Parts: sequence; structure tokens; C-alpha cells
Amino acid sequence: MVRIEDIFQWIDSWAPFRYAESWDNCGLQVGSPLSRVTRLLVALDPASSVLREAKELGCQCVITHHPLLLRPISFVQTDSWPGSIISQAILSGINIIAAHTNLDAARHGANAQLKDLLKLGAVRPLEADALHCGEEQYLGMGLVGLLPGENTLESLAASLNGVFGGVAVVRITGDPGKPITTVAVCAGSGGSMMGKVLASGAEVFITGDLKYHDARFAEESGLAVIDIGHFASEKLILEPFGDFLRSKARSEAAELEVFVSRLEEDPFKLVG
Amino acid sequence: MVRIEDIFQWIDSWAPFRYAESWDNCGLQVGSPLSRVTRLLVALDPASSVLREAKELGCQCVITHHPLLLRPISFVQTDSWPGSIISQAILSGINIIAAHTNLDAARHGANAQLKDLLKLGAVRPLEADALHCGEEQYLGMGLVGLLPGENTLESLAASLNGVFGGVAVVRITGDPGKPITTVAVCAGSGGSMMGKVLASGAEVFITGDLKYHDARFAEESGLAVIDIGHFASEKLILEPFGDFLRSKARSEAAELEVFVSRLEEDPFKLVG
Amino acid sequence: MVRIEDIFQWIDSWAPFRYAESWDNCGLQVGSPLSRVTRLLVALDPASSVLREAKELGCQCVITHHPLLLRPISFVQTDSWPGSIISQAILSGINIIAAHTNLDAARHGANAQLKDLLKLGAVRPLEADALHCGEEQYLGMGLVGLLPGENTLESLAASLNGVFGGVAVVRITGDPGKPITTVAVCAGSGGSMMGKVLASGAEVFITGDLKYHDARFAEESGLAVIDIGHFASEKLILEPFGDFLRSKARSEAAELEVFVSRLEEDPFKLVG
Amino acid sequence: MVRIEDIFQWIDSWAPFRYAESWDNCGLQVGSPLSRVTRLLVALDPASSVLREAKELGCQCVITHHPLLLRPISFVQTDSWPGSIISQAILSGINIIAAHTNLDAARHGANAQLKDLLKLGAVRPLEADALHCGEEQYLGMGLVGLLPGENTLESLAASLNGVFGGVAVVRITGDPGKPITTVAVCAGSGGSMMGKVLASGAEVFITGDLKYHDARFAEESGLAVIDIGHFASEKLILEPFGDFLRSKARSEAAELEVFVSRLEEDPFKLVG
Amino acid sequence: MVRIEDIFQWIDSWAPFRYAESWDNCGLQVGSPLSRVTRLLVALDPASSVLREAKELGCQCVITHHPLLLRPISFVQTDSWPGSIISQAILSGINIIAAHTNLDAARHGANAQLKDLLKLGAVRPLEADALHCGEEQYLGMGLVGLLPGENTLESLAASLNGVFGGVAVVRITGDPGKPITTVAVCAGSGGSMMGKVLASGAEVFITGDLKYHDARFAEESGLAVIDIGHFASEKLILEPFGDFLRSKARSEAAELEVFVSRLEEDPFKLVG
Amino acid sequence: MVRIEDIFQWIDSWAPFRYAESWDNCGLQVGSPLSRVTRLLVALDPASSVLREAKELGCQCVITHHPLLLRPISFVQTDSWPGSIISQAILSGINIIAAHTNLDAARHGANAQLKDLLKLGAVRPLEADALHCGEEQYLGMGLVGLLPGENTLESLAASLNGVFGGVAVVRITGDPGKPITTVAVCAGSGGSMMGKVLASGAEVFITGDLKYHDARFAEESGLAVIDIGHFASEKLILEPFGDFLRSKARSEAAELEVFVSRLEEDPFKLVG
Repeated sequence: MVRIEDIFQWIDSWAPFRYAESWDNCGLQVGSPLSRVTRLLVALDPASSVLREAKELGCQCVITHHPLLLRPISFVQTDSWPGSIISQAILSGINIIAAHTNLDAARHGANAQLKDLLKLGAVRPLEADALHCGEEQYLGMGLVGLLPGENTLESLAASLNGVFGGVAVVRITGDPGKPITTVAVCAGSGGSMMGKVLASGAEVFITGDLKYHDARFAEESGLAVIDIGHFASEKLILEPFGDFLRSKARSEAAELEVFVSRLEEDPFKLVG
Repeated sequence: MVRIEDIFQWIDSWAPFRYAESWDNCGLQVGSPLSRVTRLLVALDPASSVLREAKELGCQCVITHHPLLLRPISFVQTDSWPGSIISQAILSGINIIAAHTNLDAARHGANAQLKDLLKLGAVRPLEADALHCGEEQYLGMGLVGLLPGENTLESLAASLNGVFGGVAVVRITGDPGKPITTVAVCAGSGGSMMGKVLASGAEVFITGDLKYHDARFAEESGLAVIDIGHFASEKLILEPFGDFLRSKARSEAAELEVFVSRLEEDPFKLVG
Repeated sequence: MVRIEDIFQWIDSWAPFRYAESWDNCGLQVGSPLSRVTRLLVALDPASSVLREAKELGCQCVITHHPLLLRPISFVQTDSWPGSIISQAILSGINIIAAHTNLDAARHGANAQLKDLLKLGAVRPLEADALHCGEEQYLGMGLVGLLPGENTLESLAASLNGVFGGVAVVRITGDPGKPITTVAVCAGSGGSMMGKVLASGAEVFITGDLKYHDARFAEESGLAVIDIGHFASEKLILEPFGDFLRSKARSEAAELEVFVSRLEEDPFKLVG
Repeated sequence: MVRIEDIFQWIDSWAPFRYAESWDNCGLQVGSPLSRVTRLLVALDPASSVLREAKELGCQCVITHHPLLLRPISFVQTDSWPGSIISQAILSGINIIAAHTNLDAARHGANAQLKDLLKLGAVRPLEADALHCGEEQYLGMGLVGLLPGENTLESLAASLNGVFGGVAVVRITGDPGKPITTVAVCAGSGGSMMGKVLASGAEVFITGDLKYHDARFAEESGLAVIDIGHFASEKLILEPFGDFLRSKARSEAAELEVFVSRLEEDPFKLVG
Repeated sequence: MVRIEDIFQWIDSWAPFRYAESWDNCGLQVGSPLSRVTRLLVALDPASSVLREAKELGCQCVITHHPLLLRPISFVQTDSWPGSIISQAILSGINIIAAHTNLDAARHGANAQLKDLLKLGAVRPLEADALHCGEEQYLGMGLVGLLPGENTLESLAASLNGVFGGVAVVRITGDPGKPITTVAVCAGSGGSMMGKVLASGAEVFITGDLKYHDARFAEESGLAVIDIGHFASEKLILEPFGDFLRSKARSEAAELEVFVSRLEEDPFKLVG
Repeated sequence: MVRIEDIFQWIDSWAPFRYAESWDNCGLQVGSPLSRVTRLLVALDPASSVLREAKELGCQCVITHHPLLLRPISFVQTDSWPGSIISQAILSGINIIAAHTNLDAARHGANAQLKDLLKLGAVRPLEADALHCGEEQYLGMGLVGLLPGENTLESLAASLNGVFGGVAVVRITGDPGKPITTVAVCAGSGGSMMGKVLASGAEVFITGDLKYHDARFAEESGLAVIDIGHFASEKLILEPFGDFLRSKARSEAAELEVFVSRLEEDPFKLVG
């Protein structure tokens, strides 16, 4: 019999919660550590459609990358987000857990997926917490590494376009013909890493959710940027995360079916 | 048809939410402004027994004096308070509203009830917010007034003993034989008002939930104190509050049954 | 003879600096109030290309929408932004002034331009500072108004696509077929206004620079969003601002040539 | 010849001042480290009656558990507490020292006395500072341990009633018939330890000075509580503390008479 | 019979305590509002020598310009300042009151004395609190005015040298031959007023206690400075303050002898 | 070829930047790490006259003891300090570096110079950062040591008078005849070290820039003080600092001429 508290320990063995940033709110969002789980859904966001999918699949647990309660709440208004999700979860008997920056910083997190996709070599972290360096499951926030072959900003961007499910178009900043060898990546929203990317010597920064002023700053700093979208850059992590949970369940001889969301979509659509 | 948002406006007309202290969290705790209400329960605390009582009475709304979420929360753990109450409320379709320091400061709040019980004359507030002074529904925090007849600390304390449902025994600080004419009252937990009570010239301070150091400070300051208990001092407000809601419903020709909790008890019992 | 301090007063008569947000840093960025000005360039960003354009045009002053020193600096490193701009400005004898949230909140600011473009009727501000309401030059932050004709989210988005110079593609969130009558607009980066947009009853929010979580929140709240890009949404203001300065110069019989940047471009390019 | 600075070092050897909480103010309250002491009084509170007792006994030093100046002062008003005590002390040549949370956390502090009284076995601290764990004089804040024999909440509470000088009646929260084996204790005012008590697995929490909301929270959490009073729970420490000082004086061949207050009383009296 | 509380009201009628800066601590420092006073000493500092002088004169009250407890204290160590003064005051039955920035900002404060000495005309405040402007007793912090006759920085400085009791030498910053017409003055320690002095158009700033960086900043700003010493610049106020108290006592037919300290000296002596 | 970044490393080897206080802003103030340097000027202050001297000497770098941007700036106003210096530096191609509290705490900093001048023996630091104790280049903030020969406060002060270039007169606090053996020194502005000086057992404190209240506090505490002036106390460091840079350049076979300011003067002049 698997309980929510077991799921915690499994996640903690793969992406330890102590790796989370101090401003983050990983772990239990709604539910009880003692609840039983036989079916579980992995997704990026604690959104209505994800909870509906979980309910239809008969899941008692949803693990999302983004925390439902990143900011504390003073009331649970059931007709507006995030109260609507709390209500939906309680009425459907669904527990919600978040694995956010602990997963970002872990050895098998979203940046590691980007690295594999790009076939980056000689990778090193953009930012590493001295407290955890050397731990087996720790990787750090963001990566920088070397791209194989000959590339320009434009050819690299074009090759990324269409690889990810969420966007059909990527945004770039910089001279399209700029040759690219050293690449920094940060899945999700990498704007706050700009200074470390510059210091790393990378020629291009691949990330998502860049603000206008970040892009202008990159331009002024001679750094090329490819914005592949927040959703696209993180969606990569879901299948490997699901695989880990399945193999963990098997190794514990636990009855647990693990699903990865099929219905979740990027909230941004392009028109034009 | 009465909705939760109507109940708000009714409360706001009797104990305006703008009277609440800045640290307080009055108003909606759990639920939706658009929910329909036909039966409503008034109580002091958002406790399990109160929610059970509400469910048994078929209520869709509980108004409590103490806010469920006085401190913001970062997760809803459904097997421990306050998450357990959020869960109970959502599963039973019950909306929870708090009317706390707005009610304390209102003309017909708990201090007004204490004043009537003691038959105090020439009353004035211990603390008044200049912003609201002169408003019809505003009274202020705490009261000071004159007691009719001849009293000592001991005779006054003895006369209060047994008047309230929650306690069989009151605690006093000071010389039992001290003559008492001027009385300060503050329903609930009045420790933070000690300075204003001293400045008011009162000979005794009747309140609840006094800490040891408050009692010692009163003793050093020559101020007598009668601690009648937090629960007892506030329970008085429930019936008048219920009456107000009933009369409001009548005047609006609204179908609403209002109940005052019969099962709620003081969490403190005496042994000895 | 026009001095920088005169330019200040002109701006202040059109977009009073007291309208600026408390976190903002409008006004002089680099230079001296006593410097003489005969040629002036208006642009969105204090970027290298803009300073080069100003130098080539023989300008002694650049007015940018975005402040060079939004965050205070502890050193002026001349080979990295913003120190590079400070150095460029001082070496070229160029004074830099910012007109940012004072311009956003002014009657003839960027939101007013969006309103005209969309032919919105019955407009009212999304957020208004009680201190300035009723002042002739004050409009407020963001607008909400009624769109003429019959529109869906998709048709509206398509009609906006290509109108602005900076983007060839806009991003939408929501059901493409949703009928749209009430529109909220906020030029620049409107993510922080989401709560006020929801409260306004708008069916769509047109703004720029939305983050992923803002888009997801909009989706969960049933609010459609059209992200037209930060650059595109603000570029509209430059010509009217230039026109104002020219007419002011004429009315003061002052010798001042006013240019609007022709070379400034959106830092984001689309690939795909 | 014994000086105040010697008394400090003696206390520091038994209840090291570095064990004090960061918000506390242990150590010298009034006087000079160089003052000579031949007679010394130990008490709980820096109250007028205690200072009178000290003066009558010819003491030059009073050690109190509660600090006179827990909160810093901006004036010494000699006709109101705590200025009145400062004035009394200076006029009587009495030095005042506080040994508060350093004593609570020490091996022979008030919790250790409660443990002996209850004959608790297998005790461990509720909260321990990693910095001091393993130090010979360090115990931690609060204790949890096993009660010998068969007990219910009611029988345990009844057995405590009358044991302590300060109260004739104790307050309980919880089902009187609940069987009790594991007991948490925290002398003084233990409300802030509630979370750690719950995590400890204790069935009852014996402490003093509980607030109403603490009691309600305990009730909601299924934790029984016995409130024996702040005064009663700490009075136990005075005799052992006096004994320590006497033996220390003997071992140093110092002329010092140590008295424990005979006149100090609980400020709360019960009526009813 | 005059009490300390009467002295308060007298001071308050001349230099209202509400004029004090928010960081200041004017009013009672040690003693009781109800103490009787027949003899009173006025001085700048709550120093040992001043308390001895007060005791020898038989005073029950010392009014000092500088507060004894500008920063709150957590213990009264009687062998080091300020505890030593508290102890001396209590043992000698002396009450200590401070009249500090309320006096600085008052119509007859130290700046007014400097103005009279310099025969400044057309004076206006350097800084005025909008809350008190127009009140009869309010003047503001610092003054700026016009000097009669022809002066240079050097001749003005030389004329000030020797006028004050405390210093034999003043320090200047700036070109000795600079002609001076407009003068800013701020008794005490005026370094924080430098920005307002610059904005006032003054050619010289006469004040005390300037730090090195203030002097360098003045030099870089083309502002001349004459540092006449903190003590010297404030000593002027003592006699007029004493006169006021005497006349107040006479008008109230109160028995009160007022002394101005004869023994207080500048702590700085020059050598060389 | 020497670059600014090389100069940094040289300074860092002699007075490591990690020794700087947390509130300080040492390092680059204006310029670029990559700028070339062939001539360099060392001075105390980033003042106009120092920059003129640097320009006349053909220097591309000025190292000052006091940081230009101790407080962050939100605009660069080129006609007032510090913007005027930024402008002067950029127009003259001069880079400005600050070596402030890192130099104060270093083995060969200003306190070491004072120690040599006074021939102090048995020196130890007044305050030492546990993080750096034992490092070869670390000394600590302030020094205390033994003075050879027989001295009184007056004879010591007289012997110091005239030794330093900046002042002709020193200020003392205390009994001129007091015998002096143990001396504390703190170059610059030592007021905040008063508590540590008292604890050190020093009989006199030699420092600069003392405020009036510091002097009064010293007087009340029985501590003698000699104020030799901020400028004078720090000027001593310039020649040794210049010598170090010259020898470093020689040992690196680098072409670098090092000048020590000849024109810089104390902003304070005495009159009288």
C-alpha cells in the first residue's frame, strides 16, 4: 500500500526537497500524508484541466512542477484560482504535491533533459549551492556546455523550432549569423540568471519566459538569446519523472500506476 | 434568494468590516460569494464540532467570531487544523465567514453586551479609531464606565461567577476588599489593553485570557483584574448577533433560518 | 535658449512627474539641468543604438520611456550596461531623461494611443490614484472600454497582428471563438494588473510581456489575453510625445528640433 | 569576598547564559558587576514585594527568573513598573540579575523539576539547540517522557491539583477519560511549543499560561492539555537553585547567605 | 507647589514636544511626574558634573538639551554611563527631563539665538514640518538669512572666534576670501542638513560637529563652512531657556529657583 | 602591459578586498577592468582637485581611500558631486578604484603606520574578524599597544601636534596630566569603536573625526581621547601604499609610474 508520505520519500530520493530555493513552496499543497494512492498523474501546472484529467484517470494524487500555493493564502475562495483547485482536489479526493526548484536543481531535472536534447558536452552548472555540491543527486541551477557541430544563432533556433510541443515559433535576440559553440540553458523562466550566463562565457542563452528588459539587456551585452517558451522548456521533464516513479514503484513492489498528462497545453497560442 | 455576498453586506451594515484591525483577517474564509444560503449557524470558533453541528442543521454557512485563517497558510493539510476545517467545509458545502475585530469595535459588539450585563453607566471607549469616531455603528475597543451600587473586588467577582456558561470560577488579581466604582471591560483577550486601562482611571479590568505577566503588571500597578475567561466573555455576543441576522432576513423578506451554536463549549475545564 | 530644466517643465506639464509610481525612477538619468539643448531624440530604451542615432543627429538630449537607472548603481563600469550608456552619454555630451510611469498614467500616454487604435468607447481607468483623480492631465494605469462591432478573440487578435511594427505574431490565451465586447488594455508589461482586469469585468486583456504564470492564471480565471509585445504596445506613444514637444517648442518660440527614433527595434525576433 | 560578577560566573557554570533565547534579556538588570554581596534572595519576579523582602533580609542581590527589562526602556519613570523597581533597587543598594531561558534550558532547570515530580522515564527534549547538544549542563526546552502506572487525563490532573503552591485548581482540555502514558512538559508559558508537542507524540501537554486559542488548537488536534499555572510550574525551581548557590558558596569558602522568597505569591487568585 | 508635570507643560508651551523628530526621545528621562520641584538646573548634557552641580545647588530637577536615553537600554549598569547617571539621579532625588529637537525647532531655540548674534535679516527655515508651519511657537530646523555689512569667509570666521565660550578656534572649509552675504545656520550637529543648505542658496553654513566627509562634500559643492563646535553653538540657548522658566514661574506665582549650569564645559580642548 | 584588473589583483594581494566591511563599497568605482594603465595616482579622496592632478600627471587610474559611491546613486548629475567626478573621470579617461576598509584592516594599513609613528609595543587588534584571523595580510580594525617612555595626555598630544600635515592643532578630552601607557589607535573616524576601546583597557584613544557625544561619553567613562583629524590620521598610508605598488610593478617588470597626491589638503582649516 502506497501512501502520500511514501511518494514524498521517493521524490526526495531523486530530487531532494532540501535543494529547493528559500522562496519556493515545494511538497504537500493539498491533502494528507496518510492518504492512499494507487494512481498518480504528473503534470506541469495545478490547473482545472489537469485535475479533471486526474479525476477521469481515477488518480488520488497529482504531482505538479509549479506549486499551487507559491504565495500563502488568507482565504480559500472556491470560485477563483487557487481556491478553485483546492476545492476540486478535496471534492475529488485528490492530493496535490509540488516538485519545483528541487527538481530544477536535481541531476535528472529539466536542464539535464535540455542538455541531452542539445547533445551538450563538457557541461557545468551556472549556479551551484556550496551546501549540496558533490551530492549524488545534485546538479545545480542552469547549465553551460559545448554544442557539437557548426551552428549559427539562426540555425540553432531553427533546429529547436518544432522540437517542443508547446510552441511553433521561438523568439531570438541577437545577430542571426553569430557562430555558436558555448550554450547556456535554463529551463522555465531564466531571466534572473542573465548575470551568471554572461559570466559563464556562453554565446547564447536558451531559456523561456524572458521579459522585454532581459532581452534588451542581453542585446546590450552581446549575448544571444533563444526563448523556447516556459512550457516547452519544462515539458521535457514529465516523462523521465514518470519513468522514475514507475521504476521506484516496481522496485518497492508497490501497486501504483503513473500517468503523465496528455491534455495539458501551453496557455499561449500564436496568431498570425 | 440569499447569497453569501448578501450576508456580507448585512454584517457590514451592523459591524462594518472597515473597523477590523490591520492584523486581522475578517470576511470570507472558505467558500464563494455566490453560494446560496438558506440556513446559517453563528458560533465563536471554526472548530470540528461547530462544523458538524452546522452540517446536522443543514446550514450552508457558518459565521465565526474567530477567523479560521488568522495567519496565512502555505498548504492545506486536511488531517490537521486548519486544513481539516477547510476540508470539512468544502465536503459539506459550507461557507465560513469571520466577524472578529470589526464586531469587537461595533456598537452592538461583545463589550456592549458586557456593559449591559454589568449595568455600567457613563461609558466611553478605551481606544477609539479617529477614522471612525462618530459613525453610527462604531463604539471602539474596550469600554470604561461606572458600576451602580457598592462593590468590592471580591463581591463583584463573586457576582460574575456563574453568570457565564463557560466557567464556574473566575480568577482575580488584587486586594479582595478593594472598593470598585469604575470598571474597564474588554471581551476576549484584553492583555494588550492594560496600558489604556491604567490611563483610563479604572479600578478593575474585566477581561479574559490574561497572561501571568499581565496579571503581575496589574498587581504592581495597583489595578485589580477579574479574568472571566475568553470564551465566557465573548459567548454573550452570539444571541444578539443571531437576532440581528434574523431581523435583517425578515426585513429583506429573505428565506433564511439563523441558528446559534448550542454545542460549542469552552475548551478549558476546571479540575479540583 | 532651451535648457534641460526647461524640457523637464515641458514634460511635467504634459505627464507630471508626480504621477510616477513610488518604485520608479523618472527624470534626469545622466547630465545637468543647465545643459543647452537644440536637438532632442525620443525613444523607448536607453540603448547603444539609440545613443548612436542621437549622436549622428547632433542631439544633446535623449528622452527614453524606460529609465536607465531603474535600480541604483554602486559603480559605473563603462564596458557593461548601464555604465556603457553613462559613458557614451558623457563622451557625446548627451543628457538622458526618463518619462516612464508618469507617461503611462497621463491623459495622452500609451494607453490612450491603444484606446484610439481600438476605437474603444466608454473608457475608464483600471487603477486610479485618488491623489490625482480629477487632474486634467491624469488618466490612470490601464484602461477598460467597449469595442465597436462584433468580435471574437481570434478576429480581434488577427486584426491587431501586423498593426504594430515590432511583432509579426501575437500570443493569445483563451477560446479563439469567445465573443469580445469589453476590452482592458495596459501598454508595456501588464502582468501585475491581472487582478484589476478581472475585477473590471473585461473579457479580454490586451497587453505585452506576459509571463507564463500570468497566462495560466488568466486561463484559469476565464479571462482571454492578447499579448501584443512590450515594444509594440509602447512604440505608439513616441510620435505623439514628439509632436507635443515640437508644439511646445513652437509655442515658446524656442529653437529645438525633435526627432523620434527611426532605428530602434524590438529585441525579440521570431524564427519559425 | 563575593561580587556580583562572581555570582554571574556561578550561574553560568550551572545554567550557562549562552543557552538563553535570542529574544531574552538574561544577566544584569540593575547594579554593578563590582558590587559586594553577602546576602542574596532568589525569586520568580522582580516585584515590589520581592524587593521589600530582600531589603528586610539585608540582601544586596536579587536573582529573579523573569527579567525586569525584557523589553528595552526609553525612560525610568520611578512611579510605575519597571521604573519603580529600578528606583527601589538603587535606593536599597540591591543588584538585580535575571536567569530566565538559560535556566529553562539547563539540565537542572524547571522542566527537570517537573520530570522528577511526575517520575517521568525515558525523557528527551522537545526542542534542542544543535549548538549546545551534548554539553553537560544542557537539557533543551521542554521535555517528553513516559509516566509510570495507569493514568487518565482526569486522574493525572487531579493528582497535580494541590501539589503546587500557587493554584488550587488546574484547567484541562480534552476527554477526561483519555488514557495517558506519554507526557510533554514545559514550565512557564508553553503555548509556542504546541507544534513540537504534537510532533513528539505526547498524549498530554502539562504547562502553564495557555491562551484560549492554544487550548482550542489542542482540542482540534486531539492533544490533551493540563494547565497548572505559570507560577506553580516555575516555583519548583527556586529551592534547587538556592541549594546550588549555597553549595557553590561553600565550595568557594565564600561568605554568602542565600534565601528563597517566602512571600512571593501567584498574582491569580480563584473566586467561586 | 510646582511638580515635574507642571514643568512639562511650561516647556510644552514654549517648545512643544510634538515638534520633536521621530527618532528623538524628549521628555522625562528619570523620575516621576508627581515629584515636587523648588530648584531646577538647566544644562546641555546629562553628565556627572552636571548632576553634582544640581545636587550642590539643592535642585530636584535637571533639564538637559541632550536626552540621557536617546537609545533604549536593556539594563541599568550603575558604574557606566548612562546607568551611572540614572543611579546618581535616583540617589539624589533628581528628576531629569530632556528638551532636544523640540527646542531646536522652536521659535526661541538655539538657531534663533545664532540669528540674533549674527544679526541675520530676512530669515527663513532650512526645513519646516508642514504639520506645524504657522504655529506661533514653531520656527523649523536651521535658518538661512542675510548678513549685514561686508564680509568674507575669513573675516566672518574670525569674528565668531572667541564669541562662544567653548572653543578658542573654529574650523573653516572654503576660500578664505569668498564674499559672504547669505548665511545658513544650524546649531548642534548640522551635517545632515547639507543638502538643504545647498538648495537654499546660502554661501556659508555655520554649524558644529561636522564630519570630514561633510566638509569635503561642501568643498566639492562650492559651499563654505564654519564649524563653531557643537557645544558652543548650543550653549547660547541655556540663558534664554532659564529666563523663560523664571518668568513662567513668576507669572504662575510658583516658588521655583532656576539655575543655568556654570560648570559645564566643552569636552574638547585644543592643544597646540 | 598593465590593466585595471591587474591593479586589482595587486591590491588584493596586499589588502584583500574580502577584508572590507559589509556596508563598504571597495573596488571599481568608474571605468573598465580592461583599461590600460601606465601612470597611476594614489590619494585619500575622489575630489575634483585630485582628478585634475591625475590628468595633469597623465594618469589613467586614481586609487582613493574613500569610495566615490559609498551610497548607491539613481542618477548621474554631472554638475554636482559625485556625478561631477564620474563625468570628469570619463572625459579624462581615468579609472577610479577604492581601497577603503580592506586597507584599514590590512597588515600594512593606516593603523600600522600610526603604530610605527608612536613606536607602540605589544600591539593587538581592537576588533578582529574570526574569518580572517591568522591570515598573513590581516591585522584587524584598530590597534591597542604600549607606549615607550613616560607620558601624560598633554605631553603625548603636544608631541603629536605638528607631526601630521593636515592639522596644526589636535583636540583632547580628559585630564591633561593623566599618565598614559596603554594607547588605542584607529585611523580615520573611530567613534564607533569607543566600546571596544573601553573594553581594551586603553588609557587614551587616538583617532579622528570624533563627534561631540563620543567625546562626552569618553569623558564620562574616564577615557582620554586625542583627535588628530580624519585627514591627518589617514594621510600616512599613502606613501607606503605607493611604495608597495611601485615594488609590485618592478617585480612584475610592468611599466607603471605611481604617484602619491601632492596637492590634496585637509578640507578643514583652523582660524583663530
